[in-house]
Amino acid sequence: MADDKSSAEDRLIARHFKPLATHPGALGLFDDAAFIKPPAGCDLVLQADALVGGVHFFPDDPAHLIAAKALRTNLSDLAAKGAAPLGFLLSLALPKALGDDWLGDFAKGLRGDIEAYGCPLFGGDTTRTPGPAMISVSMFGSVPEGTMVRREGAKAGDLVFVTATIGDAALGLFVRNGEAQWPLDAAQRQHLLSRYLLPQPRNALAEAVRTHASAAMDVSDGLVGDLTKLCRVSQVAADIDAALIPHSDAAKAVIAADPAARETALTGGDDYEILCTVPPAKADNFRAAAQAANVPVTRIGVIAAGEGVRFLDAQGRPLAFRQASFSHF
Amino acid sequence: MADDKSSAEDRLIARHFKPLATHPGALGLFDDAAFIKPPAGCDLVLQADALVGGVHFFPDDPAHLIAAKALRTNLSDLAAKGAAPLGFLLSLALPKALGDDWLGDFAKGLRGDIEAYGCPLFGGDTTRTPGPAMISVSMFGSVPEGTMVRREGAKAGDLVFVTATIGDAALGLFVRNGEAQWPLDAAQRQHLLSRYLLPQPRNALAEAVRTHASAAMDVSDGLVGDLTKLCRVSQVAADIDAALIPHSDAAKAVIAADPAARETALTGGDDYEILCTVPPAKADNFRAAAQAANVPVTRIGVIAAGEGVRFLDAQGRPLAFRQASFSHF
Repeated sequence: MADDKSSAEDRLIARHFKPLATHPGALGLFDDAAFIKPPAGCDLVLQADALVGGVHFFPDDPAHLIAAKALRTNLSDLAAKGAAPLGFLLSLALPKALGDDWLGDFAKGLRGDIEAYGCPLFGGDTTRTPGPAMISVSMFGSVPEGTMVRREGAKAGDLVFVTATIGDAALGLFVRNGEAQWPLDAAQRQHLLSRYLLPQPRNALAEAVRTHASAAMDVSDGLVGDLTKLCRVSQVAADIDAALIPHSDAAKAVIAADPAARETALTGGDDYEILCTVPPAKADNFRAAAQAANVPVTRIGVIAAGEGVRFLDAQGRPLAFRQASFSHF
Repeated sequence: MADDKSSAEDRLIARHFKPLATHPGALGLFDDAAFIKPPAGCDLVLQADALVGGVHFFPDDPAHLIAAKALRTNLSDLAAKGAAPLGFLLSLALPKALGDDWLGDFAKGLRGDIEAYGCPLFGGDTTRTPGPAMISVSMFGSVPEGTMVRREGAKAGDLVFVTATIGDAALGLFVRNGEAQWPLDAAQRQHLLSRYLLPQPRNALAEAVRTHASAAMDVSDGLVGDLTKLCRVSQVAADIDAALIPHSDAAKAVIAADPAARETALTGGDDYEILCTVPPAKADNFRAAAQAANVPVTRIGVIAAGEGVRFLDAQGRPLAFRQASFSHF
């Protein structure tokens, strides 16, 4: 007689993850695979991003925030592509030290964002690792056929926009590391810290980006480097007025006290804001759509013919950066 | 002036992975996401499986075999669901010790199976880890709408089939570990070892499974435990004639010399064969389709009403197993 009890792995999945698999095609996670009928007339948009403990988050960060960050880094990519989220697959490798309480808190973090962004769990894989936790999310969304917004497509004369504020998360990492010697009040420290811990993906703007932007990407590896990538693929240049780049009050206070921190803010990454280019004729409608979506957008410069990305200070002098963007390699 | 050079990460992707992204919707991996128009009238089948160094493979296994195993464990799930592969996303976390040569060999392994199985790379994520390598694959395939074969659906009277042979990989792991004291010749040792290192997913049988099977899954955690899972979800029992379970000559030699090894063969996992149930009226057509697909299939028992999975030996005595299947938790 074979053992008819569920395996510990099955029980773990039933306890923590089954409640997150609300789409009927997920089959309650009782099967090897899930299925979905993509919306008629739509392309499926596919994207994956992984977080590694000690690299993308601190192992002692609260588990529900790690879960939210894992989803939101992916949601941010879909937003910048103009796509509506459909769901995700989750591969989880966990060290033994992370037990049932940690998983319960992790699942709670997933559940909050699954509901907030309408993006249920479809399946995945759970395994042990002798190394740090790794959380690998593959997310899929949809756009009307042929309308995914690409990095390619920016044209000379298009206006360059970013959402919300730039640099908070990169400065927040210094706060999290206890390395920040900046004169910040408690609210400012908390603002920068929370922007590092919990991205705010701009999915509310996805429709406006899809309708109006000629090119877009999310800012995850630093504004300077990411704009450089967009311009390279679009085979254009950009002139950015650094004074126009939106910073939070906290980031402004840091840069005022420590001008070198501006480079951190512009190249440090983890913003999860949308960078997009909009033809001038569409700019008013884009601004109006952003206002309706309650997402602040700011024009920071213009696309030009040629190649290269120039950031100019208030005196028109080019800013130099030691490293344009974060790279793991 | 911003740094206009590609980052090392972008160069790594361009060198090793761009040639694998042959679908136009992958945009040459130059974008944040990919897109695909699912075939008309089809459901998308979604599935993820990850491999961790030291858990699912030996860190000194050849990189091209690790790559092939990462794809094939996922291809095997699609095959058992009756789905045709469309493509995959790859999240790769690599320790510093694995350099450019390793990645080149890894990409070579991917390329071979991308071509063999018609399953191109659509995108993903590459990062460093202070821990062991982790290779997380999310794979998507297609089936005509509503036809994904599930674990649920087996009915009393259905015949239970498996493909090829069972237990080779679990015994091969003992060979790989140097723990095997069995009287095997070199060819037999090599057979078991290669079955552990390189799964042979039965995608050639997917169409036959979709057309004829009432329920199916791939055998990845051991035949006993996986059949138990299928029966539990289908709310049926099964009577298996252990003497009918197909074993390779190498596995037969092991079991003859060491009868206790039969339990390893039946519960040890890593088979990546298809387990399916077929209504008796469809059995002849299923066998013919399997023969046409050049995939051996063997009837090993029958589905019954009730619950529980019984493995009976040649004398009709029930076999007992200490642990029905492999579990990471």
